[in-house]
Amino acid sequence: MPKTIPENSVGIVTPQCLHFDEPLLLRSGKTINSYDLMIETYGTLNEAKSNAVLICHALSGDHHAAGFHSEDESKPGWWDNCIGPGKPIDTNKFFVVCLNNLGGCAGSTGPTSINPETGTYYGPDFPVVTVRDWVNSQVRLMDRLGIPQWAAVIGGSLGGMQVMRWSISYPERLRNAIMIAVAPKLSAQNIAFNEVARQSITADPFFHNGRYLEHGTYPKKGVMLARMVGHITYLSDSAMRDKFGKASEAIANEPIAGNFGRDLRTGKLSFGLNVDFQVESYLHYQGERFSEHFDANTYLLMTKALDYFDPTVDYEGNLSAAFAKSSCRFLLMSFSSDWRFPPERSREIVDALLEAGKQVSYLEIEADQGHDAFLLPVPRYLEAFGTYLNRVSDEVNA
Amino acid sequence: MPKTIPENSVGIVTPQCLHFDEPLLLRSGKTINSYDLMIETYGTLNEAKSNAVLICHALSGDHHAAGFHSEDESKPGWWDNCIGPGKPIDTNKFFVVCLNNLGGCAGSTGPTSINPETGTYYGPDFPVVTVRDWVNSQVRLMDRLGIPQWAAVIGGSLGGMQVMRWSISYPERLRNAIMIAVAPKLSAQNIAFNEVARQSITADPFFHNGRYLEHGTYPKKGVMLARMVGHITYLSDSAMRDKFGKASEAIANEPIAGNFGRDLRTGKLSFGLNVDFQVESYLHYQGERFSEHFDANTYLLMTKALDYFDPTVDYEGNLSAAFAKSSCRFLLMSFSSDWRFPPERSREIVDALLEAGKQVSYLEIEADQGHDAFLLPVPRYLEAFGTYLNRVSDEVNA
Repeated sequence: MPKTIPENSVGIVTPQCLHFDEPLLLRSGKTINSYDLMIETYGTLNEAKSNAVLICHALSGDHHAAGFHSEDESKPGWWDNCIGPGKPIDTNKFFVVCLNNLGGCAGSTGPTSINPETGTYYGPDFPVVTVRDWVNSQVRLMDRLGIPQWAAVIGGSLGGMQVMRWSISYPERLRNAIMIAVAPKLSAQNIAFNEVARQSITADPFFHNGRYLEHGTYPKKGVMLARMVGHITYLSDSAMRDKFGKASEAIANEPIAGNFGRDLRTGKLSFGLNVDFQVESYLHYQGERFSEHFDANTYLLMTKALDYFDPTVDYEGNLSAAFAKSSCRFLLMSFSSDWRFPPERSREIVDALLEAGKQVSYLEIEADQGHDAFLLPVPRYLEAFGTYLNRVSDEVNA
Repeated sequence: MPKTIPENSVGIVTPQCLHFDEPLLLRSGKTINSYDLMIETYGTLNEAKSNAVLICHALSGDHHAAGFHSEDESKPGWWDNCIGPGKPIDTNKFFVVCLNNLGGCAGSTGPTSINPETGTYYGPDFPVVTVRDWVNSQVRLMDRLGIPQWAAVIGGSLGGMQVMRWSISYPERLRNAIMIAVAPKLSAQNIAFNEVARQSITADPFFHNGRYLEHGTYPKKGVMLARMVGHITYLSDSAMRDKFGKASEAIANEPIAGNFGRDLRTGKLSFGLNVDFQVESYLHYQGERFSEHFDANTYLLMTKALDYFDPTVDYEGNLSAAFAKSSCRFLLMSFSSDWRFPPERSREIVDALLEAGKQVSYLEIEADQGHDAFLLPVPRYLEAFGTYLNRVSDEVNA
């Protein structure tokens, strides 16, 4: 519980649930006849309705991007480092909209919702949704809110992929596309890790072919394992070394002599199958915590959305051609130690944008934290992010 | 089945089982009173008994390093690329000894053996064995074979760690230490991946706390998952891209435009939880195949041996001090795309050896295959390997 809510927080926020009745045709060919989207907004829409920005979340995110739901909430929303008064996405200047995507498990219609056609949980019957489907649903949200054009659409990782799709499919409806720690599509290695996560979940005896809610169970261990695998890919080797190696401070300039994050949990080896190293405890804790609130079927859907994302699919594999009609300006940022979506993957996008003659800014940030850096208060990142958005604010609030 | 056994093969080989009765005190404080070691040998011991080399295996290896057990065997031993007449470890010149380590599942005493004290499978009661324990058992094997000094002890990955331990603990008993794709100890990230593998196995409902043999079951899915995770770390991102991207050949000089190993299995997306990409099928196949012959408890033991390995433990973390008494010459080789034990980890060892004033040669080989490269016929690797060992042969066979 925050004793006092920090001054640069958006404060106590209240989510809203919006219902949509118009059927949404999905990429899979299936249709969702009606659905809810949970959203949060921060800041105030200006009279010209020109200062709205959309935040797109990544694999495990939701609509709660900033502030607190109550005084009792111990942690703020997932992107509180970047959203708030005076922060890069400055809520004194922008009207910030964030939603839980379709298929999610934080209030928007998804596998844990009741399927009106069957009267029971969607579970595994919830259709596979793609980045394009999400963006289509976000366009409807935008129309509902009466926003003609986003000042910016912003996202990291899978969120950045949604930004990319916006710039390609709805060029006239955003002024700026900000993609952070993103890739034009997953590599075979990325897909491989996702498949391990999916197998971990579906192999859990409590998965029941996805109908665990009907069975009153939950594949907790499978979700935990999936998250453990994922978590390793979000951190860099050096971030782990720093986190789990006492010696790391002493040897900041001499990493070679470090203990490589091999701090023991109890000071000595167990010579058994117990947890010996701090890094193991940490992963268990992360997996455990995640498995307490995240739906297994949603996890499966999110990884498939990642695997399937390919903005070049209608352009014979040509990314530059995909961007031909885009009219927004682009900002890309990547992090040096991100091995999930390393800087070279961002550079591919930058190169394609340049080839297409688009306005693009790109910043590669030295940061040790791996893919997770996009969520963290890395000074150079926050500064560049804020500087860019200040210019956007000057335009849209003029 | 090989229609004809290739000329540069050691041909049909027959393993031998050696029984040891002298109790072996382990690092854990436990003792194994008696045990078997399965071995294979290739080539002929010279009169001076000076041309013997020991091959140490890695996580999933065994004593069957080269040749065929019968005309029907479809694949030769795991290091057949490197061992045979005219190959780097030339069986016309060397007497090659390879064993299945204690705790293994290919015939040496391990979890699948009967514990004479209980009359049933060791299973989870088999003690945790360390690299040092293995080397101690290998010294006894050496004595049994009447070999006073190895011309070389050779190994890759976990095998290389055994080589390192030999050079530290038994300096007078080897002339050359050849370590390939090795690290002085695991990083936090390495340990994290091992822990995910262990959790996959122990979470399998058929694991039965390690007593699956008594239950007549096997945690097949858990072992499969563990191997899938492992396999991703053995391959490089680029190796996967090449393996699973049809476009890769056409774009050899333009990797940016590739499909990043995203070849589809059936040519189109399933929009379900099926396997969509070739890389997924491949991982399933690898995991499946591995789970058919490898013991789950052995897998757990091997990953703990990896995690525990730390040659500096008696030297206050100082690797150079650990090598102080070593008197052999050293050859290290690493592979550019190996992200499990990347070249910088080998360089740490090289630096420590140089600091200790030892004779060391080091070669970093450009290879796309990741950690697995040490098993593969990478031309520059085989050439350097052979050249070094030819010089060794000239000495010991003089």
